Amino acid sequence: MTAINFAVIGYGGMGSYHIHNIMPNENERIHVVGTYDHSEERQAISSQHNHKIYSSLEDILQDQTIEAVLIATPNDSHKELAIQALKAGKHVVCEKPVTMNVAELDEVLKVAKETGLTFMVHQNRRWDPDFLITRELYKNQQIGELFQIESRVQGANGIPGDWRHELKHGGGMLLDWGVHLLDQLLFLVDSRIVKVSADLSYILGDEVDDGFIAYIIFENGSRAIIEVGTTNYIKLPRWYLKGTKGTGVIHDWDLSGELVIESDKQAIQAPEPIQAGVGLTKTMAPPSEEATETKKLSNVSAEYDPFYKNFYKVVREQAEPVVKNEEVRKVMILIEEIFEAAKKLK
Amino acid sequence: MTAINFAVIGYGGMGSYHIHNIMPNENERIHVVGTYDHSEERQAISSQHNHKIYSSLEDILQDQTIEAVLIATPNDSHKELAIQALKAGKHVVCEKPVTMNVAELDEVLKVAKETGLTFMVHQNRRWDPDFLITRELYKNQQIGELFQIESRVQGANGIPGDWRHELKHGGGMLLDWGVHLLDQLLFLVDSRIVKVSADLSYILGDEVDDGFIAYIIFENGSRAIIEVGTTNYIKLPRWYLKGTKGTGVIHDWDLSGELVIESDKQAIQAPEPIQAGVGLTKTMAPPSEEATETKKLSNVSAEYDPFYKNFYKVVREQAEPVVKNEEVRKVMILIEEIFEAAKKLK
Repeated sequence: MTAINFAVIGYGGMGSYHIHNIMPNENERIHVVGTYDHSEERQAISSQHNHKIYSSLEDILQDQTIEAVLIATPNDSHKELAIQALKAGKHVVCEKPVTMNVAELDEVLKVAKETGLTFMVHQNRRWDPDFLITRELYKNQQIGELFQIESRVQGANGIPGDWRHELKHGGGMLLDWGVHLLDQLLFLVDSRIVKVSADLSYILGDEVDDGFIAYIIFENGSRAIIEVGTTNYIKLPRWYLKGTKGTGVIHDWDLSGELVIESDKQAIQAPEPIQAGVGLTKTMAPPSEEATETKKLSNVSAEYDPFYKNFYKVVREQAEPVVKNEEVRKVMILIEEIFEAAKKLK
Repeated sequence: MTAINFAVIGYGGMGSYHIHNIMPNENERIHVVGTYDHSEERQAISSQHNHKIYSSLEDILQDQTIEAVLIATPNDSHKELAIQALKAGKHVVCEKPVTMNVAELDEVLKVAKETGLTFMVHQNRRWDPDFLITRELYKNQQIGELFQIESRVQGANGIPGDWRHELKHGGGMLLDWGVHLLDQLLFLVDSRIVKVSADLSYILGDEVDDGFIAYIIFENGSRAIIEVGTTNYIKLPRWYLKGTKGTGVIHDWDLSGELVIESDKQAIQAPEPIQAGVGLTKTMAPPSEEATETKKLSNVSAEYDPFYKNFYKVVREQAEPVVKNEEVRKVMILIEEIFEAAKKLK
């Protein structure tokens, strides 16, 4: 096994997370040679880790020992960097969002095709345990067929960092967490999208969205609500899943949550009315105890390889990538549709 | 004080709830003389309560001792009953939804105006304690200006009863719980609606909606999500309220919930990153302990009279009704807009 020699372009939050937290899991397959970052402070930190410090992109591209690059720079630079790296004969791992839009992505994919090199986007949240539980529920139908999938991430900290506040760099939350949630959704649901409604929020007064809500209808009739918020001091559940036989909730990344599953259809339909505010309601009364059973969530492992193990196999063994470029492209199309749909509500 | 003599038309779930649970609170002002219901079984029960049993609407209308009627019959009969009662010189209390649509309501309001009699719709959930807490938060700005109001009622019992499954009787959940939630919303928000998106659900295969989600944008920029579900085995919070300085949640009619309020803006914006699934997130990290404070919800009383006390004062003392017909009309217009908007997603 010969490890793939990597140079990392951008040693900020994500670049350093790859180097120090993800790549070491595959240390027989992935070897970090060095980094390139314009910040002298970051260069200093990187050199303490015995990384070679490249002084320009050109330096990396001319280094024949480098087989692959990781692009972990602001979003508006991905396209140019990817194209140059591919043209210089390097395989590429690219942070999300892959590019600013579909047109840019198509330019990259054209060069990837011409060069025959691997271009793979780090859609790492396909390995999130909460997503894997959801995916398993989708498949095993423990709560029946999922017909409504609500996926939310909410925080109260506003838009992070510096360039994420700026349009020209591809800032905003739709191009940040939005990419993850939409990628998970399309990886999950086995049906074509037929309608998209969306609203972007600008609560914080930035030129980019500080969150959004998208309502997506699939050809098979199922619905998804995808929401990102950065002005939420209390979180709604990370996942809220409606199935034909029950409901599932995953509250947070701690995987707390439960399934409530119908066990007696007859009992479900004849609950005792409850006092609700100043009125009675039978409709909104909880099902009687015999009518449902509550189950714990069970942890699930991915049946596909971890990202860098897969990347290695794609490069060395012509394996199929877990994150396929045509999937990434569909997510970018959906993001453009969401931006477009949101204009209708302006 | 001379009590108003009432005859109750329809002695089903709502009619009997009025007679046995609401009207007795105002027993000096409201006196139930008798009932009219086509069901012999219900007549028998009613007569056990010493009610006069009317054998036809005509009977009631000709009874000079009767000053007012309560209409608590299926939705499609409200208009005719109201018009006949008004023309016969009776004041009218009508269950919600007032009529099947705006055109029907306008017919009723025309007759009410001509006769000078009181016509008042029982929008009782303006007195719900959870709504009153929300309304107080809207006014006192304890969590800042509310810019997103999410109001949900969710159950797992499907559509209740018999006629509520049928279009011709005005069945479905938009015309059931929907009327309440929309009435509360319009009573709450001090701004004009500019956009409505909506999706009705037909999970149970009825000809009427078994729930819906409506997304409403107001001229002042605030948003509302109104949702009714009858296929939810786990409930999302009854109220989820985003303000410019915090978030509020009321979980259920038991009034459990809390407010989380920003106390240190600087600390809010600099949280420690947390592990979230297989990645890190600073954006979705919870605010540090110093950054926010958590407060309990405090119970609130309505500053307006209870429904029947108000009705009495409207009839006897020309007081202003708490539930105004122009407000009821705006809710019916909104319901028509929601039905219309939902067609776009079909």
